[in-house]
This record gives sequence, structure tokens and C-alpha cells, in this order.
Amino acid sequence: MHNENARNDARNAAAPAPSGDDPHDPRRLVPPALAREIAARFGTPCFVYSQPALERRADAALAFPNAFGLTARFAMKALPNAAVLRLFDRRGLHFDASSGFEARRAILAGVAPAKISLSTQELPADIAALLDAGVTVNACSLSQLERLGEAARRRAGTGTPLEIGIRVNPGRGSGGTGKTNVGGPDASFGVWHEYLGDALALAAGAGLRVTRLHTHIGSGSDPLVWQQVAVASLELARRMPEVATLNLGGGYKVARVTGEKETDLQTVGAPVRDAFVRFAAETGRRLRLEIEPGTFLVANCGVLLATVQDVTDTGVGGRRFLKLDSGMTELLRPSLYGAQHPVAVVAQWERGAGSGERGDSADFIVVGHCCESGDLVTCAAGEPETLSARALPAATRRGDLLLIGGCGAYCSAMSAKNYNSFPEAPEVLAGTDGVARLIRRRQTLEQIIANEVAPE
Amino acid sequence: MHNENARNDARNAAAPAPSGDDPHDPRRLVPPALAREIAARFGTPCFVYSQPALERRADAALAFPNAFGLTARFAMKALPNAAVLRLFDRRGLHFDASSGFEARRAILAGVAPAKISLSTQELPADIAALLDAGVTVNACSLSQLERLGEAARRRAGTGTPLEIGIRVNPGRGSGGTGKTNVGGPDASFGVWHEYLGDALALAAGAGLRVTRLHTHIGSGSDPLVWQQVAVASLELARRMPEVATLNLGGGYKVARVTGEKETDLQTVGAPVRDAFVRFAAETGRRLRLEIEPGTFLVANCGVLLATVQDVTDTGVGGRRFLKLDSGMTELLRPSLYGAQHPVAVVAQWERGAGSGERGDSADFIVVGHCCESGDLVTCAAGEPETLSARALPAATRRGDLLLIGGCGAYCSAMSAKNYNSFPEAPEVLAGTDGVARLIRRRQTLEQIIANEVAPE
Repeated sequence: MHNENARNDARNAAAPAPSGDDPHDPRRLVPPALAREIAARFGTPCFVYSQPALERRADAALAFPNAFGLTARFAMKALPNAAVLRLFDRRGLHFDASSGFEARRAILAGVAPAKISLSTQELPADIAALLDAGVTVNACSLSQLERLGEAARRRAGTGTPLEIGIRVNPGRGSGGTGKTNVGGPDASFGVWHEYLGDALALAAGAGLRVTRLHTHIGSGSDPLVWQQVAVASLELARRMPEVATLNLGGGYKVARVTGEKETDLQTVGAPVRDAFVRFAAETGRRLRLEIEPGTFLVANCGVLLATVQDVTDTGVGGRRFLKLDSGMTELLRPSLYGAQHPVAVVAQWERGAGSGERGDSADFIVVGHCCESGDLVTCAAGEPETLSARALPAATRRGDLLLIGGCGAYCSAMSAKNYNSFPEAPEVLAGTDGVARLIRRRQTLEQIIANEVAPE
Repeated sequence: MHNENARNDARNAAAPAPSGDDPHDPRRLVPPALAREIAARFGTPCFVYSQPALERRADAALAFPNAFGLTARFAMKALPNAAVLRLFDRRGLHFDASSGFEARRAILAGVAPAKISLSTQELPADIAALLDAGVTVNACSLSQLERLGEAARRRAGTGTPLEIGIRVNPGRGSGGTGKTNVGGPDASFGVWHEYLGDALALAAGAGLRVTRLHTHIGSGSDPLVWQQVAVASLELARRMPEVATLNLGGGYKVARVTGEKETDLQTVGAPVRDAFVRFAAETGRRLRLEIEPGTFLVANCGVLLATVQDVTDTGVGGRRFLKLDSGMTELLRPSLYGAQHPVAVVAQWERGAGSGERGDSADFIVVGHCCESGDLVTCAAGEPETLSARALPAATRRGDLLLIGGCGAYCSAMSAKNYNSFPEAPEVLAGTDGVARLIRRRQTLEQIIANEVAPE
């Protein structure tokens, strides 16, 4: 369910290759002709998501190896646009909400509440209403358990005991000591495993049935680590006799640029399935598996389309810069994590669907439009403030389009929105039928300041 | 004009002291009784700005040493709320806009266009209209100069030549080699100094009068560096005979926590004033000085008010966490720069205006409400992902208020807004009369999704 320790991932990535024959070239998702059409119709900057790509990823997640049933939930914080939620809903995915607002947002998009699971650091004030609507919840702390107990007492008249999950921090994580992490003693997520007994006693006292166990430690793409996590989680499940579902969270990696490792779900899932089978043989309990991918489902299904609005340089021995009409206002991941995103130019003079790689290339630093030294698109891997040049066509000029790949997850959803008073960018869905359709309009300046009021 | 290389600043700061007798204790700006009143009236999370503090800082900026006149501009990207802009406008400040949207926003707030100077990485499409309205502009690249020349030709009928400024990158910066920077060969801001001749020729050919020179390299708090920058800038001004105003930008540091260095404007300004006097003696040109502080004017005039909504721990030898109803959605600077902000608790049981420091203290890690391992408020200086504990009252519990200081600049204005679908927080101005007044309402979920449209 949690956004990974992405800085560490980025540090492990090799420098990206030039985009010519790069499988990560964003023009493979949004070809030059489509990019030009979208820029003309909707302006730039603009996010473009590919419906066929989203559907392929949904299908891959739904094929995760499992022994006794699978619920694959989209961690919707990665890309919460209603059109994307509906597309995934139709395809068979369920949803992981990270806040009460996200749960409401999914309901407003038309998702059945029973398909929404809430696991949050901040239990919302309206949790009782969400539960009544049918949203399920994983208690992520002892105090959340107490509050869920109160909610259960209020609905005691209904006769059906409230079924909940518990998120447990199993005591190990994927990060270093003293670093932010989603598991282990330095992580704030979930009930500390030593307190599981207290949690179960609390739940029993409040008449809650604990039917789901949630563990997620950001386990990456290593099959061995996945197996260890599954085995450790199943050990916890032995102590929770009513648990029928084990949720192992997300954390599946994708390769946005060459050199980054992608998780193969079949490979990491096979030993997990085997562990479930062994658990069933030993206990007679056939547990359902839940997974909660976010990045895996959407990261490489989206492109940020921007316009080069200046080309400058700092002389002999200096740098050549491409300045975009976008930046950290849409794409914060480089500034926040040193994340690597592939870039490609669609030059104005390209009339066909060619690669745009004709002619000489030159080294460019791609920067954003904010008056902020850290608004850098092409930083070094894991080093947000270190410049890293990309080879792009030397003839690139003002008015050319730039496509930035790997922008489906945590870009539109997690950006320095409205910094320098730039409006939120539109979002477009490129359909299976080849037609680009607007799914979010560009914000206006008036909307940015709509809530400002003169002091009485 | 630019937001500084804040990560490097943070790295140089010492670990913060406990907040007991700390001059940076946010309760000095927003006392417990006021904090409770604001939380009750407007909810949390909520930004609170102090009118008296804002006015004191405006007065300090307007007292910057100068020889032949001063224009102090608020770098409005630091905190662009209309109520703050109007307060500064009344106090005598002018404005630095970093985008066309910011210039429009200031005009909508009631600021006279002639008081607005635009220096931007992205020259807006409506630049001609802004110029016609009276906004002044600093050309920040050769292509911007060309486009300003086109705008000037369109208004040639008026008979008055367009006066502009040029931002020059003087070839030196305050950061390291290969790092993001606002000056030097690795910086994308301004016309590279070797191209100044080309720029002046372009301007002359387009009938533009270059009456202002802008240099800003993030020069920090060292008086010697300031003097060097002023002298180097004045050398450039010798080659620009019509220049009547030298704009040295901003970059004045503030101390948010103990151990951080604060720029004393009188100290750094005195040698700058002397340099202007010498320049006048040598050339007969009495240049006006412009400065563009952002952080200096607002950083320590604002507090983020949040509610502790969970207290958890990871056992013996583990960590104790305070979880807020806020985080990177309001305060991105720790995650982005490893920035240090002072924190203080206002406990529910405090009934007076006491310090809240009664009883034992304990080490807490303060984390935000996003499902993101990096949503950490108390990180180590310059290390966004390294946990750093703060001593806070051991009895702190759910429902207590937490005040985070130093949240006036680049917090409300630069955050991971709407991440996890949390709505934008309200803003409150605590007046000189002691009354707290709403200056921005809390956003609703419906507003967050207002621009989403179903694909046709």
C-alpha cells in the first residue's frame, strides 16, 4: 500500500541510455503524431495515459500466482483520476485507499464501497459512515482498533459483528537503520508485532472479528525476500484464527529507464503461492491473497507531455539547458527522490511518425519552469541536486515537444501543485480505439485562488 | 528571486535544541490559547500567519541600506495569499512575480501592476498584455529578449519605447560544481555573462531600453560575498549605460531553529551601499537598489497548526511516533531539503497559556499522514530520509495540538498538495488586534475533483 523508499531505488539505477533504441522511450507509448495532436487540442503541460497499457498491467496484476483466490487492489494514491479508477474497476481490480478522502473519491467515481479497503495513518472522523457504506478497513494502530471498536458498538444493533483487518509491522523492513521505511523499528506503519496480542485482545473485547492480516514492508523485486515476507506473515496468521485473507501489500518495482529492475510477478509470486499451499496443509486454512500494487499498475502507462519553451547555455565548457513549460509542478519525483525518467523530443519539423533521432545529438540538462534551483528533471540517479545530461537532438528548439516517460504513478498525484501559481495540468486518456479523450481539464488561476477570502 | 539551495543550508544547521527556552519555539508566535481557539474555529491542519511579525519583517526589508533609493520586492512565490500581498502592499513593498500567473494573481489581489516585476523561466503567452497593464519585466534569456522585442514592436505606435531589465548570470554561484544552483555555469537562470553583448545588441535592434540589471546568485548571509556580488554586478552595469536600477535578488537566510544563521540586512547591506556610492563617484550614475526577499519576509511569521491523531511505538529499543493530521501535503520542505522546523505541543489538559513543558519529556519522531515512508517532519538536517527525534512532553497524546514553526515561506505555497487526496489546508491571519481571521477556506474533496470529466 505504501509509496516505496524510492530514493534508494533510484540510487541503484544505472545511468539511462540515450533514447534511440530504448525500450523505455516514451514515444513507444505516445507516438509523435498523437503527441502533436494532444498538444494542439489540450495544450501543454499535459498528462497522457494509455488505456491499452493500463489494461495490460491490470491483467498482469490479476494473474498474480495464488493458491486459494486473489484480490488485486489498485493503490489509488498513485493515480486517483476517476476515469482510471473506473477503467480498473471494469477490469476487475479492487481498491486500496490511503485516506478517508480517497475512499470517498472512489465511491464518487462509482466504485462499489465493498471493493474499497482503507489502510491509513489517519483514521477519518467519518469512519463509521464509511464502514456502514461497506468500505473495509485495516486497523493500523492500537488506537485505530479502539476507535473501530467504538464504531462497532454503535452498529451493534445490526446483529452482524464488524469484520476488520489489522496491519502489522512484522519487525523487519527493506531500508537501512535510522532511515524512513515501511517496516521495521524505524517505521510508523501498522501495529508493532510485539503488540499483536494486545491488538487481538482489544479486538475481542470490542466484538470485532479480525478476518484479514495486512503486512507490507516494501519488499522489492527479490523473490527470496518475498518468500521470507510471506512465510513471516503466515506465522503471524497462525495466531489469528479468524483470518481468512492475507494482504501482502505492494512494492513491486518497475523499470522506467534502462538499468532499473522490474519485478516479475510470476517469479516473485510462485513461492508465495507455495507457502500458502503449505500453510493450508498444516492448518487446514485456505487463505485468500490480496496484493496492492500502485506503481506497478500505472507508472509506465503515463507520459508527461511538455513544450520546450527555451534553450539556453552557459558558454564553452558550460551546460546546455532545455527549459520546459512543466517541472516539479507536475513531476516532483526527480526533486524528491532523484528519480530517473526517460525523455524524448518530438521536433516541430518532424512530419511523420519518425523517431526524431535524425541529425546530431548533444548533451542537455532538462529543467522545469519554477524559479527554484532544484526544479531539475534530469538529475543523477538518487541525487536530486546533481545535474545529469541527456543526449537529445542538437537541433531541439523552442516549441518542440518533450515527452517524459514513467509518469503514470505519483506524478499527477504527488506534485508541487500550484507552486509559482502554475495551474494543475490536464489529464488525457488515449483509448484502445486510438482516440485521445480529456479526463481532467486544466485548472484556472481563478480556481487556484477560489478559497481565498478577505479577512473580515 | 529564486528559492535557495535549501538542502545545503539545512545540512549546515546544527541539530535543534529542545524547545523549552528556544527563541524559535512556535508558541512565541501563536500562544497556546490562540492555537486552541484557531483549531476550534477553523480545524486542523491550518496555517497561521502573524500580522505584527509580517509587518516587522517588511519594515526590516524596507530599511535595507542603500545610497540612492530602494525598492524591496516580496518574492511572492513564497506565500502568494492575497491577504498577505495586500498587507505588504500597504506596508510599502513591491512584488517579484516568478510566472505570468503570479503577476495576474497579484493584480487580482489589487496590487498596482507598476509595482510588479516579472522574472521567469517561462515567459507567458500574454506577456504583451501584462506589459501594457504596466508590469515590468526582466528578460531572463536571449529568446525572452527576442519575444519582448516583438511585444515592443506591437506597441510601437504608443511612442514610448519599452523599458526592460535583463537578468544576467554573472558566472559564479553559491553551490558546488555539478549541483543545482542559481548562478554559475550549472545554473539555467539568466543570460550567461559572456552573452551580455549579444543581449544588448538584440535589445538595441528591437528598440528596447535596458534600464535595469538583475543578478541573483543565492549569495547567502556572508557580507563579504554580498560585497563581491555587488561589485561584480556594478562592473556589468558599466557596460549598460541606460541601467538606472540594480536588482541583487534575494537569498537572505533566516534561522528557523537554533544553530541556523540569520542574515543581518544592515550588516550585509552596508558594503553594498558603499559600492553604489563609489560607482556613482566614478560614473556619475546614482543607481537605485532593488532586493527581492521571500523567505526573509515570511518564513518565521507563520506556523502550521496540526493535531496529533495517533501516538505509536515500535517496542523496547524502537521509536515513539507522533502521527499528525498534516505532513508533506502542507510541509514539503523536510522531505525535499531535509529542512529543520521547530515543533511544540499544546496539550489538551493545558488550560492556561503555560509552556506545556511540565512533566517528563521523551524522544518522538513526528511523521505526516501520508502513506509514504518519506512523509517525515523531524528528519535530520539536510537528510530527508534520516529519522531525528525531538524531545517533547512524554504525556503527549491523541487530540493534542502540535505547532510547527518556520512555516510562512514555501509551505502553503510549495507542498505535495492533494497527495493521498487530502484537501488544501486553510490559512488564518492573526491580526495586530489579536483577532484570528480566515484568509483561505479549507478545500473540499469536490473541489479537488472538480476538473475531472468523464471521457466522451
